[in-house]
Amino acid sequence: MEDTVGAFVPHGLFEVNGASDGPLAGLTFAAKDIIDVAGHVTGCGNPDWLRTHAPATATASSIRSCLDAGATLVGKTVTEELATGLTGENIHYGTPRNVNAPGRVAGGSSSGSAAAVAAGLVDFALGSDTGGSVRSPASFCGVYGIRPSYGRVPMDGVMPLAPGLDVVGWFARNPDVLDRVSRTILQGPEGKPDCGRFLVASDVMGLLDSRTSQALMDAVAEIEGLLGPAEGIAVVGDAAPSKGLASWAEIARTICGAEGWAAHGAWIEAEKPVFGSGVAARFAARARVTAEAAARANAARDAIADYLDDLLKEGAVLALPAAPGVAPEIGGSDADIEPFRAANEPIGSVSGLGRLPQIVLPMAVLDGLPLGLGLTAAAGNDEMLLGIASALYNAGAIPDRENEHE
Amino acid sequence: MEDTVGAFVPHGLFEVNGASDGPLAGLTFAAKDIIDVAGHVTGCGNPDWLRTHAPATATASSIRSCLDAGATLVGKTVTEELATGLTGENIHYGTPRNVNAPGRVAGGSSSGSAAAVAAGLVDFALGSDTGGSVRSPASFCGVYGIRPSYGRVPMDGVMPLAPGLDVVGWFARNPDVLDRVSRTILQGPEGKPDCGRFLVASDVMGLLDSRTSQALMDAVAEIEGLLGPAEGIAVVGDAAPSKGLASWAEIARTICGAEGWAAHGAWIEAEKPVFGSGVAARFAARARVTAEAAARANAARDAIADYLDDLLKEGAVLALPAAPGVAPEIGGSDADIEPFRAANEPIGSVSGLGRLPQIVLPMAVLDGLPLGLGLTAAAGNDEMLLGIASALYNAGAIPDRENEHE
Repeated sequence: MEDTVGAFVPHGLFEVNGASDGPLAGLTFAAKDIIDVAGHVTGCGNPDWLRTHAPATATASSIRSCLDAGATLVGKTVTEELATGLTGENIHYGTPRNVNAPGRVAGGSSSGSAAAVAAGLVDFALGSDTGGSVRSPASFCGVYGIRPSYGRVPMDGVMPLAPGLDVVGWFARNPDVLDRVSRTILQGPEGKPDCGRFLVASDVMGLLDSRTSQALMDAVAEIEGLLGPAEGIAVVGDAAPSKGLASWAEIARTICGAEGWAAHGAWIEAEKPVFGSGVAARFAARARVTAEAAARANAARDAIADYLDDLLKEGAVLALPAAPGVAPEIGGSDADIEPFRAANEPIGSVSGLGRLPQIVLPMAVLDGLPLGLGLTAAAGNDEMLLGIASALYNAGAIPDRENEHE
Repeated sequence: MEDTVGAFVPHGLFEVNGASDGPLAGLTFAAKDIIDVAGHVTGCGNPDWLRTHAPATATASSIRSCLDAGATLVGKTVTEELATGLTGENIHYGTPRNVNAPGRVAGGSSSGSAAAVAAGLVDFALGSDTGGSVRSPASFCGVYGIRPSYGRVPMDGVMPLAPGLDVVGWFARNPDVLDRVSRTILQGPEGKPDCGRFLVASDVMGLLDSRTSQALMDAVAEIEGLLGPAEGIAVVGDAAPSKGLASWAEIARTICGAEGWAAHGAWIEAEKPVFGSGVAARFAARARVTAEAAARANAARDAIADYLDDLLKEGAVLALPAAPGVAPEIGGSDADIEPFRAANEPIGSVSGLGRLPQIVLPMAVLDGLPLGLGLTAAAGNDEMLLGIASALYNAGAIPDRENEHE
């Protein structure tokens, strides 16, 4: 395999053959370089991390499940440093190219995984999502992605960022592969598109500029043929336990900060790693979260999760953005990206705080650039969302772009 | 089913039928009341928790896997409050009876699950283990138990105590059922007793009184026929990154404290729940852990985990105590129990900090009371330990007590 888009890390170009048969036989895959493969150092996007860590002694269950099901691992992909970041630019390992949006970033932090899938280098790829790290790359690269319900994927051998929010997710170019990988890793039943109310998160859509939200609402209109008329609701409505999407974003930021600093603060202080622009500042902010603030945020989060499970009961499906807009141009300054990042936090907080599954469907295009639509549901309803993706694809509601770049 | 030993909570006496066939068909099971079943409130051992929480909207993956494999859930079992505690005494729901040690506690915090299995009320039961909550009940009740490698079991629908240490584990009366449940939930390969060096943790054994350690060393001698001569080593030896078992215990206590308070501190402050003796004090201590201390502890923990994976490389098996001794008498004062609890912390810290799997084998008896031997291995080697348990049982090295109480 030639890495034509800079998706793989230099120390991650190795192959592990899977079982000789199984439901994923014949498929190749890659894994974000925060997930362990026995005998290889997991680099976590930072050379100082690579230098100060030993080879993994066991292969993570999420990778092993795919190998056992017959898929072949062809390597480890570029991640933003310590799985933090939205754009996918890594000063040490470069910016994976987004073949579906030339000159634009591939999204982060699971940048290389999404880029490799979009370019057809692999059939699927594993990433991870804490605040949107599967969702924004899937949207930017025009591929399918899933952030499963919190807790459904075994997390052994995965570098923690914020263990209360972290989930391993994956990307594919068509819903059939997405579904087969999901059934392998989640061990759930076959997905069926049997759902209840079809809702649109009008308050979250309201965070977007009008052309972006219109492109997503056009996608929502395509879906109505399968799911019935969409009903606009404010997710953070009158009954919500914390008022305003900004407060939800703040709760997620506090949890991620406390847990991220607990996981990595001492290593950062001891090793003083060379970090790219923004990474050091984000960790410095994390160091300032108090235990009191973390406890308050976790309680608020539990109330939000209960509220969302009730809001989405009886198989409701909620459409919302997967990212704040199309992929930004490569090389933007921190100041350029900051508003984008600020808009991503409330968007990402809904599924994150709610422990909800979310799929990203490559349904929209704006100015020739991909834009994904997110669909979320109550915790545990992953298979329903996967069934909807397949049904929409089979009905022609999602354009088939699979073979464009192969 | 008549609950003859007080193992079940009053709100947890309901049945959920599993699939009509599968590898667990014909088996019944119970689950610790910190694990969700859709439609039922998870009580977490505290009536104020029960009162302030809504019914679960989804069934936890760990329970669902067993149902899908054909097992029938017959109810939810007593846990110590918020899964904290070593003895299994709950002021609200009573102390489950230990049929194999009359007048003695069943161990905690997964008290009801171990008691129900020991009494033959169910074929297996799910519990959880943060610092020993599967290991001490298995040892006290004379049943098989496993704390799988950290992260291998999906944790959706499980009340967190310390997400960086929490693992769902299970109990059974024979290694065949233990293995079948493990294969269902862990989705791993068939276990084979192919192992490397056989080690005994001489420093951890040294924490026990001489009669207890002798009883366990007699069990070790039984195992040598299968695993070869045992080699005594200090786990926290010269090469260990933090010196002394006491420092390992402190690291585990700090992580558990920070994460436990983050998870529940705000609820405790808001609801002021009625807690049994010791529980309130333990949470008050957790509130005092600073973010700095948590970060230092997590870094020390990562170094310990790397060290243990190296120590246990190439399939090494390490024998160590599963608990500080036989089950204490019911009704002991906090002062009576404190030395026992203090000894349990370093014992429990080895597998906890190392993210290691540990099985408990009901091999020893002291003064007519059960005493389990722990076997641990490098992370991911769960199936090897299960294979060893089956091989030892088949070779007659573990007494068959299964039918004593049925």
